[in-house]
Amino acid sequence: RRGRVVLVGAGPGGPGLLTLDAVDALADADVVLADRLAEVGDLTRLAPGARIVDVGKRPGHHAVPQERIESLMVAAALEGLTVVRLKGGDPYVFGRGGEEVAAAVEAGVPVTVVPGVTSAVGVPGAAGIPVTHRGVSHVVTVVSGHVPLTNEQAGGLVALGGTIVLLMGVHNLVPLTGALVAAGLPATTPAAVVERGLTPAQRSVVGTVATLPDLARRHGVTSPAVIVVGEVVRRSQVWDRRVDGA
Amino acid sequence: RRGRVVLVGAGPGGPGLLTLDAVDALADADVVLADRLAEVGDLTRLAPGARIVDVGKRPGHHAVPQERIESLMVAAALEGLTVVRLKGGDPYVFGRGGEEVAAAVEAGVPVTVVPGVTSAVGVPGAAGIPVTHRGVSHVVTVVSGHVPLTNEQAGGLVALGGTIVLLMGVHNLVPLTGALVAAGLPATTPAAVVERGLTPAQRSVVGTVATLPDLARRHGVTSPAVIVVGEVVRRSQVWDRRVDGA
Repeated sequence: RRGRVVLVGAGPGGPGLLTLDAVDALADADVVLADRLAEVGDLTRLAPGARIVDVGKRPGHHAVPQERIESLMVAAALEGLTVVRLKGGDPYVFGRGGEEVAAAVEAGVPVTVVPGVTSAVGVPGAAGIPVTHRGVSHVVTVVSGHVPLTNEQAGGLVALGGTIVLLMGVHNLVPLTGALVAAGLPATTPAAVVERGLTPAQRSVVGTVATLPDLARRHGVTSPAVIVVGEVVRRSQVWDRRVDGA
Repeated sequence: RRGRVVLVGAGPGGPGLLTLDAVDALADADVVLADRLAEVGDLTRLAPGARIVDVGKRPGHHAVPQERIESLMVAAALEGLTVVRLKGGDPYVFGRGGEEVAAAVEAGVPVTVVPGVTSAVGVPGAAGIPVTHRGVSHVVTVVSGHVPLTNEQAGGLVALGGTIVLLMGVHNLVPLTGALVAAGLPATTPAAVVERGLTPAQRSVVGTVATLPDLARRHGVTSPAVIVVGEVVRRSQVWDRRVDGA
């Protein structure tokens, strides 16, 4: 029997956002290498035939180094096993899916990818924020907020004039929003941060690109959280219900 | 009994990309207003208790006008029915989901949204193109290609230096790529168009931002198709297998 690797996007939270293809892949798995063990529900039920390995990757916290994940994945497939690499969100949106596919291809292991709901769209949506909206924005840029924006990038985002979604950026909220305002984004531009989106603990803090860092600090917002900047925030129900700032 | 509306993202193609929450919503539905009847499989089995209405919205072809869809949706919910509004991809990525949510809210009808896999990520991924890749791109912009880019937008995209995903843009491939090159994007930048992504008829045409329009024309590429521009295309298996251009 020939082994294989299936990269599976588990979506941004909760077992309800697994796709049917993801469920099928888990049901067939001999091994599951999982990032977000706690969040997709009962993996022993979803993958009853599998050995489940928590490789524990979360922003800023890699329980198992990336290279080790890739070698575990490839070694199991070369033994003839069906390996599911279960990742939060979509494997190709800041998920290092491209590297894992390349590792499998390089080892001669068949690899397929099951796309998932990305937090970049699903989390703003869960707060009622449409990342695009007719007549408001037909452009959305998703940026890793893990490192600050360069002046050129901030200028590019302002020139684009669309929605900006910053992932993994709560700890950089001051430099990220500051770079946008310095590049010419009006300080009155609506902005929101959605913490623990699509979980029962979801909450949103809403203001402007100028007021958001202070509001987020005062409310003790921590990661995981998705930041959205742009006029679409004004189209959301969180905007109508906002209590401070703006 | 109180009616309600559930906007459901069906994903970019095939019943396998429905989420479990989408399946549950369909199972509970009294009415389904569906855009992509043919693509999500057997709706009479997925929604056995529902009247199924094909509102037939596709890019450039609205069988039922948007206002009529919204009034059908609201009227059924006000009758006490559970209405599923089934949309391709994600409801908030060029899906007019924000307008439909607003119509429900305005009518006092409870509304929830089930996010879906967006074609902007899932379709490039199905061609092996990671929209982000460590060390290559940590920015991805999704733009409607339905109208040409302004010079300012094209300049912004070039300044950003990330991945560009153009949806609904095949008929505008010449002006879209031309605007990017005119704004300073190197003509050698890899580019691909993925036609009928995530269906059995999927095919990719791969070249550079300069050669893609002619390649796509010669291969007779038509919509639906997703265009990807950026160095991430070089990281894909379609790049390794490309036969012309570049």
